[in-house]
Parts: sequence; structure tokens; C-alpha cells
Amino acid sequence: MHLSALAAGMRPSLLRHLLARASAPGVISFAVGVPDGELFPREDLAAATAAVLASPPGGLQYGVPLPALKERLVELMSLRGLSCRPEQIFLCSGAQQGLKLLGELLLGPGSHVMVEEVAYDGMRIAVSAENPRLLSVPTDPWEGIDLDALEERLAAGARPAFLYLIPEGHNPLGCSLGLAERRRLIELADRFDLLIVEDDACGLLHYEPVAPTLYSMAPERVIYVGTLSKILAPALRVGWLVVPEALIAPLSMLKQAMDFDTSTFAQHLACAFLASGRMGDHLARLRDEYRLRRDLVLAALETNFGPNARWSRPRSGLYVWLELPGEIDSEPLLETALEVEKVAFCPGSIYVVDEVDRPRSTLRLSFGGVPADLVEEGVARIARAARRFEEERGKEAVVCIPSRNPSKS
Amino acid sequence: MHLSALAAGMRPSLLRHLLARASAPGVISFAVGVPDGELFPREDLAAATAAVLASPPGGLQYGVPLPALKERLVELMSLRGLSCRPEQIFLCSGAQQGLKLLGELLLGPGSHVMVEEVAYDGMRIAVSAENPRLLSVPTDPWEGIDLDALEERLAAGARPAFLYLIPEGHNPLGCSLGLAERRRLIELADRFDLLIVEDDACGLLHYEPVAPTLYSMAPERVIYVGTLSKILAPALRVGWLVVPEALIAPLSMLKQAMDFDTSTFAQHLACAFLASGRMGDHLARLRDEYRLRRDLVLAALETNFGPNARWSRPRSGLYVWLELPGEIDSEPLLETALEVEKVAFCPGSIYVVDEVDRPRSTLRLSFGGVPADLVEEGVARIARAARRFEEERGKEAVVCIPSRNPSKS
Repeated sequence: MHLSALAAGMRPSLLRHLLARASAPGVISFAVGVPDGELFPREDLAAATAAVLASPPGGLQYGVPLPALKERLVELMSLRGLSCRPEQIFLCSGAQQGLKLLGELLLGPGSHVMVEEVAYDGMRIAVSAENPRLLSVPTDPWEGIDLDALEERLAAGARPAFLYLIPEGHNPLGCSLGLAERRRLIELADRFDLLIVEDDACGLLHYEPVAPTLYSMAPERVIYVGTLSKILAPALRVGWLVVPEALIAPLSMLKQAMDFDTSTFAQHLACAFLASGRMGDHLARLRDEYRLRRDLVLAALETNFGPNARWSRPRSGLYVWLELPGEIDSEPLLETALEVEKVAFCPGSIYVVDEVDRPRSTLRLSFGGVPADLVEEGVARIARAARRFEEERGKEAVVCIPSRNPSKS
Repeated sequence: MHLSALAAGMRPSLLRHLLARASAPGVISFAVGVPDGELFPREDLAAATAAVLASPPGGLQYGVPLPALKERLVELMSLRGLSCRPEQIFLCSGAQQGLKLLGELLLGPGSHVMVEEVAYDGMRIAVSAENPRLLSVPTDPWEGIDLDALEERLAAGARPAFLYLIPEGHNPLGCSLGLAERRRLIELADRFDLLIVEDDACGLLHYEPVAPTLYSMAPERVIYVGTLSKILAPALRVGWLVVPEALIAPLSMLKQAMDFDTSTFAQHLACAFLASGRMGDHLARLRDEYRLRRDLVLAALETNFGPNARWSRPRSGLYVWLELPGEIDSEPLLETALEVEKVAFCPGSIYVVDEVDRPRSTLRLSFGGVPADLVEEGVARIARAARRFEEERGKEAVVCIPSRNPSKS
């Protein structure tokens, strides 16, 4: 059997590998970007399911995208200050499918896509079939995309099909763009006719006041990507795009090739849950829980790591970016961490688009799936793994581990 | 915004358009290939849902494909005489996604795909992004693929990436391949190193004894495509491929780009239903119901159409292929049928790969979604629409309508 160049050229995903090893019993996993399964509104969804299944066909048939769900999503997005018509919403099987569809819609041979130097790997995977050239823009781990560098590249003639960005609760960096930066970004988009794909997967999980979405500031310049995965349940596989209405038809045709429908059952469940009016309370609970975990992660980093380590302080989302001293390569560190300390994280290298000059000593800590009472111990394990890693290599200990968290070894 | 050549070249799907118009109140629709929503095992699925949601994370989290579901599917496929290991099963979001993934896996620039002259349109849509050259093989509406013609093309040097076929309950033709033909097909596959993609979407919906699957006859020559859409519920979006184990990894990477996971919730529901042991009774009920409808369709065709019309007599599946006298073009006939008679079907032209010399007077009647008590009236409406169509064009009435079914007009 002869594989296509696309298939033959793919390399096994470290993330999938991690997903398997990190889910072993006893492992505290900051690895995969999951929400907490304990926080899923199972009782509300059970009630929604019973109601949907009660009369035939029970939401189980093929079907056109549910207009009622689109209306509910318009309401939901109003919480993000975003205003659009239901007819602009394109439902898809999770945000990932939305990104894949945007690739098929907008990219062809020779296309360019602009991304930050450190960017969500799922986006790069989504467009891999179109094999665009990735134009990377420097990004500051704590502040986000470098707008001077962006302007310079655009002024020099870069004309990407789009710029991909997570302005709020960046994955993996954990940072959010400030209001002034958003305004300048929109000015640049206007000046250089730049299309921005705004991924807002965690935008509703904010723990402090946030700036407006890029879409709400310049709907004509932005395609918005939303999802219920982080705020309701990933297994529903319900995501959406907000696009100019003229794009709904071509997107529908591309999606038909991919899987016909976004599960009408999942659409009905999501619609019933949103219609129940419980999302407000549910979001409040999620924010309280995840804010607590964020605070615990930040406190534990303060306790377990010394002044040579730096980390982000996210106001939104589920990710903290940790930079250790440069001697520590986080890929082999992960091996040590899993084997000796039973703790997992994502090496930052997964997210690095352009490897030149990027430190290899970075980690993404995804705290969404770690129960509050395990956060401190999990971070301590990472610190111990880092110290052991240094010791084994005869390096000076640059990761400071206070004596109240002695190494197990 | 600049669309890709793929997106810009797509034409609106007549099927989608039909789906909308055919679902209007009062329309009897033989148009879309749906199972009957009244036959979904809603109570069993409600019980399965309650059980799955009862404990966290309730099947609602991201996750790896469920090994338990693969084991149940192995059991299910044993009903098709098919034997494979769970590790050969690749779960996907419906069979359509399986076809799309096979396109990405096996096709590149300049690839060829072999299909019958009249073939399932979903397959052609699935591979449209790879834009393969379609090599069409003559097919007999009542007997299936012309094996002499196939041999001739292979002997002449045709080397497609694969031959796509629905050997049992063909969509749209309704025919099934005989045992001798299957044996000869496998011989040809062996002789010419031909890979066959066997789509068995309706293989478990058979009303008479059937021949073995191609996969069971030659697993090394065949990729099997299965789905729960027609026997459980389309909205679960659970389908699968049976492939050599070495293909699981590249398929997983391609799927990760497309939508990450097949809904773990749907996987859990399907697994719970299959584990409940209710599938046997459920299949028996489906076969009884759909056999009855098939018989009613065939009887109604006999009653309403004269000797100038011909149709298939399916032993499996949900489709009857109807050939009217050549003067009747089924595309404008559909307009008449919808507007005047409130009945819908799929014009055969949707399925024609190579339009040269194919009659345009063919119709696919999908009877799965038509309640038994509406079948006779539905077929009578099609006959009346055909007669009106002829009358309006001043043609001699070649569609025979017995006097007990007078035209409304």
C-alpha cells in the first residue's frame, strides 16, 4: 500500500504519547489541556439528554445545523462582548475542525500563514494538509505577540492568508493581549488588509477583567473561533466559527466531505443546556475553581522555584508557561519527571514554530485537569525532577528547592 | 478574502438543497438516505446515557479511542462473517470521515481512484480535496460492477490507489454482488495488486441470505468501512475502518488534525448499547421493518409503473434504483414532483461519475425514512408526477398509471 506524501511525512505526535503515559495511575498530569471532568454539569446534561431522547427521532437523526443552537451561541458570545447574527455561525465538530476547515477554505499551494514563534500546535496540525509556509512573528512569553515585529514584517511585504492568534488565555503561554495592543493590532490589520483568526477557546474562563475580543473591535477583519469544549464538555465536539455569511456555503461543502454533520444529538444537548439558563452559574463555578487552581499553581511555583525561573500569571485560561534556567532541556526532563516523580507537563518545544534561538527549557503547565489538592504536590514534583535532572548531569543546582520540599531521592 | 481553489471550485450540493426542500411538511421523501427515526432505540440509549453520565467524567472528556468499543465492534462484524483484531479498528466520526481520511492517507497529486460509473456521491465528495482522477468502470444497475470491463482496464495498465465499492446493498443502485462475482473480483485484486475499499454501511440490513464480505474473503486486499449510522443512530457519528495495524498511527495523526477525537460520549453510548446485548433484537426488528417497506415499494412500483420502467429488487440496504423511459429527465421531474405532488427522490444524475451515455431518467428511491403506510402513496405520487411531466411536454404517456391511481390533475 502506497501512502500519500502527507501521511508518509507525518511524525507521531508527542502529545498523543503523553496523553497515554500521563494518564497512568498516580501521575499528576499538567500535560494535556483538559478541563476537569469533575466539573462537567453531568446532572444538567442528563436532564437535557432525557428531554431530547423523549420524543422521536430524539436528536439522533442526520440533520441541518440547528438554528436554535446558533441563537443560543449568539447569546453566549454576548458575554464576550461579541455581536453577530445567527446566520454567521458555522457549527463544526469542535474548534479543531473549524481550524482544519479554515485551512481548506483559505489555503492553497504556496499560501502563507502567520503565527507567533510559540503557538498552539493544534493549529499547525490543522493546516498541515495544505502545507502552508509558516511566517513566525516574535512573541514575548509574558506579553504576547511583538507588534513592532509584526508591523515590520507586514511593511516588508508579508501577505499571509491570515494571522492566527489566541489573544485571551494564550495556549501555551497563558498571557493575554492588553487593550492598547489590541487596538494597534487592529490598526495594522486595517492598514495591511490582514485577516486575523481569533481563537477564543478559553475566553469565557477569565479570572480578572478582560479586554474586548478582536472580533468585537473589528468584525470585518476577524474570523472568530469558539468552542464548548472547555466550558461544557469536550466530548460533545461542538465548536463554531463566526464568519461573513458568504462563507457559510463553501464551509458547508467542505464539512460535508469531512463528516456530514456536527452530531445533531450533541447540538440538541448543547442547545437544551444553554436554553436551561444554567450556563451563567456553571461559568461562575468554573471561574471560581480554575481561579483557585491558578492561584495554587502560582503560589507553588513561588515556593518551589527560585529567582532563576520565570512563569506567566494568566488572567484567563488554563495554562501557565514556565521558563527554567537554560541548562534544563524540558524534553528529557519530562522523562525524568514521569519515571521518577510521576508528574507530567508539556515540553515547550511542542509549541515552538521556529526553533532558532528559542530556549529549550520551557514547560507548559495545564492546570485545568489537576484537582486543587494535588496542585502543590504536582509543582513540587516538577521542581524535584528538575533538581534531579541537574544533579544527574553534575550541574550546579539552579532550581531552588526550599528545604521543606526535600527531594525524595 | 481569497478562497482556496478547492473552496472556490465547489458547487452547492443538490443533496443539501433536497434535504431542506424534502423535509417540508406534507412531503413524502424518498430523497435522503436516512434510517427511520421512529426505529432508533431511544429507550435503550437513554438507559445507556444515564449509566455513562452517572459517574465522572461521564464519557464527556477528551480521550483515546475506547478499546472496549473496538471489542464490541469485532463482535458486531462477526455477524458479517468478518474476523479481525480490535487493534485493526480505527474509530472515526462516521463512515464519511473514514472515507475522507482514506483519501488523505492514500491519495496525492496525480492519484487515480477507481469507481463504478454510478457510485455513491459521498465518496467522491470525500476525496475531492485530493482531486484524484476518477477511473470509471461500467456497472450494471441490476448486477453491479462489470468485471469484464474491470479486468480489461486493469490489464490495460490502470493502477488506481484503490477501487471503491459497495458490494452489499449498493447505494444508489440497490444491487448486491453475487458470490461468484466476489470470487472473481478477489482474483482480479490478487492478480493486479488492487486494493479494494469495501463500504458496508448497510451490510447488516439484509432481508435475504447474503454473500460473504470481500474483507472476509481477502483481508489483505480490502479496507473495510463500517458505521453505526444506519443500524443505531446517525447522530452518534460513529464509524470505523478495518485496516492493517500499521495504518492506525498515520490515520490517528490525520484524524487529530481533523477533529481530535471521535466523541468519547458517543463511543461510550455505542459501547454500552452493544454491551447490553440488545443489538440482536434491534437488528431483527430493523430487518423486519425495512423488508416490509422494500416489499411495499416493489409492489407499488409494480402497480404504478408499466413495462417501460425498470427497477432493482434489493436484498439488502435501503435503496431502490428506478429507470424510467428515456424521455424523462429526473432532475426537472423532481421539481414537478416536489411542487405538484409533494414527493421527493434523488435524481440519478447525482451519482453518475461519467455522464457520457448514461440515461438521465433514473431515480434513487431511499425507503428507509418513509413510514410503511405512506410508501404506496409516495410511489403513486412519483408516477403521477412522471405522467404530468410527460403531458406538459406533449409526450405520449409511456409511464403506465392504472386507473385506480388517477392523476390528481
